[in-house]
Amino acid sequence: MDITTTAEKIRAGERRALARAITLVESTRESDRALAAELLGAVGTDRQALRIGLSGTPGVGKSTFIESFGKMLTGQGLRVAVLAVDPSSTRSGGSILGDKTRMDLLSRDPNAFIRPSPSQSQLGGVARRTREAIALCEAADFDVVLIETVGVGQSETAVAEMSDLFLLLLAPAGGDELQGVKRGIMETCDIILVNKADGDLKAQATRTCADYAGALRLMRKRPQDPDDFPKAVAVSALQEDGITAAWDEMKALVDWRKEHGVWDARRTDQARFWFQEEVRAGLLARLTSDDAVKTQLAALEQDVASGKLRAAQAAEDLISQLFPATR
Amino acid sequence: MDITTTAEKIRAGERRALARAITLVESTRESDRALAAELLGAVGTDRQALRIGLSGTPGVGKSTFIESFGKMLTGQGLRVAVLAVDPSSTRSGGSILGDKTRMDLLSRDPNAFIRPSPSQSQLGGVARRTREAIALCEAADFDVVLIETVGVGQSETAVAEMSDLFLLLLAPAGGDELQGVKRGIMETCDIILVNKADGDLKAQATRTCADYAGALRLMRKRPQDPDDFPKAVAVSALQEDGITAAWDEMKALVDWRKEHGVWDARRTDQARFWFQEEVRAGLLARLTSDDAVKTQLAALEQDVASGKLRAAQAAEDLISQLFPATR
Repeated sequence: MDITTTAEKIRAGERRALARAITLVESTRESDRALAAELLGAVGTDRQALRIGLSGTPGVGKSTFIESFGKMLTGQGLRVAVLAVDPSSTRSGGSILGDKTRMDLLSRDPNAFIRPSPSQSQLGGVARRTREAIALCEAADFDVVLIETVGVGQSETAVAEMSDLFLLLLAPAGGDELQGVKRGIMETCDIILVNKADGDLKAQATRTCADYAGALRLMRKRPQDPDDFPKAVAVSALQEDGITAAWDEMKALVDWRKEHGVWDARRTDQARFWFQEEVRAGLLARLTSDDAVKTQLAALEQDVASGKLRAAQAAEDLISQLFPATR
Repeated sequence: MDITTTAEKIRAGERRALARAITLVESTRESDRALAAELLGAVGTDRQALRIGLSGTPGVGKSTFIESFGKMLTGQGLRVAVLAVDPSSTRSGGSILGDKTRMDLLSRDPNAFIRPSPSQSQLGGVARRTREAIALCEAADFDVVLIETVGVGQSETAVAEMSDLFLLLLAPAGGDELQGVKRGIMETCDIILVNKADGDLKAQATRTCADYAGALRLMRKRPQDPDDFPKAVAVSALQEDGITAAWDEMKALVDWRKEHGVWDARRTDQARFWFQEEVRAGLLARLTSDDAVKTQLAALEQDVASGKLRAAQAAEDLISQLFPATR
């Protein structure tokens, strides 16, 4: 792969180049990792998309919502990329976006780009690959990058930490079920979308929406946001009802944050967060990748196993050797 | 504190010296940590107790069981130490063993030593402190060290990783509730004790015991253990019924493991495991404790925040500087 040419093609919006580049950043081969780093450097960071995180459990209508929301956006002349973060896809038996037919119209839209979640994935690796895929989509001049996740484990937190806006898609529910939504996620999300506000469920969706609005009001206000956020909005992805209104809410929040410097501050905080995560992960990785460290580790482990050294003492010895300059 | 004198007192079984030493290993002050390391070196590792991990949710009768089990052991002339691991104690409002009156008889027994869980604890620190407290109790020549935990988060796994035997105390339950026991814990435990096999619940406890025995049979056999382990046993802590039989099962498993080299192998594996944990924790701790690293980290973080460097690139740069010899 010629890096300069590929970078140019990505910046010109060539979808095939983008798809190949995302495959490259998803690779765990060391030579591919080096190429990926080069490519990410070459595509630049001068373009920004609106990064929208979307979480919702299976069955809540995420695919239908993305189809409906995406079509509305492309209908307004915007270019939309959809990425999936699903660390559990290996367990649930396949990518949640593997079946593109569930987003039939959007997947055939020239202004939309849908990327299924890679299988066999660990959260740590997924988070980095997804952030790199976002960077590539931004370089390809997409206006909106939608990052989809099922509400499993820490994937929601990871997606929230790489999004400008975080949406939670929920189904109409009774009052008791309201408590099933994890408080941490309620506190993280900017807008709760209560889906299926149509047909027999419409009244219940409206009530659920009011319930969530009430719950959100009880939570700590965010000083950086307008008073009426986070908020709950009822939508029907199926009937494409309320989708434009929800988008208007998102735009209002984005405009407010951009005006008040909150947008930039959030991106800066997120960059710091991911840097620290990368350092932690990279440091631990060296324990198994650095030959000198591996040798020392094995020798000390032997001393611990044979009872010659206590575990804490051996660990202290090793770390003092790794950081000799200051200790 | 004079280390040599204290070590001698501990080895002579002086309870006050042991209690003070455990307070020392629980301290997070750096000067105390150094003293604790010295003391742990001075007391030696030549004595071994039987380390029994015990997990069970609140209400299952853990305190009553420990009282009953502990009295039975001291009645046989054995010396028993009870330690609690409860990383959630800050949330649940106090140590589970804070109220020693729940083990009234045992706490006044000269051959028993009960140590409540320290409050304000994080799991990482708790695990190390508990392992060090176990080492001190072994130096003080206790025959049995009972490590108690509530089934919260990763504390069960941590306790299992520092125990020779791991027991799960459960209440009589209906068939549906059986599924509520986490599979990982079922796979970790050596003996399931179904408590409250007395009065109205006796029949139900017997049924529950059979249910668990069936579930255990469905799980992967452990090649290192006799065919009939892990097993389920019904006990009544309140009526002190089945306690001696349970102890006989424990002794049978211990004898078998000692004969077949499994006992030593398990301790060696655990030492390796905790060494690796200590290295990982120590490595990450240096990011905030080592001044040179901290300075580099802050500078690179600034470059990431300002967009001059990508997070992954900056992390790679930092780690290459920390491990210059081999990269």
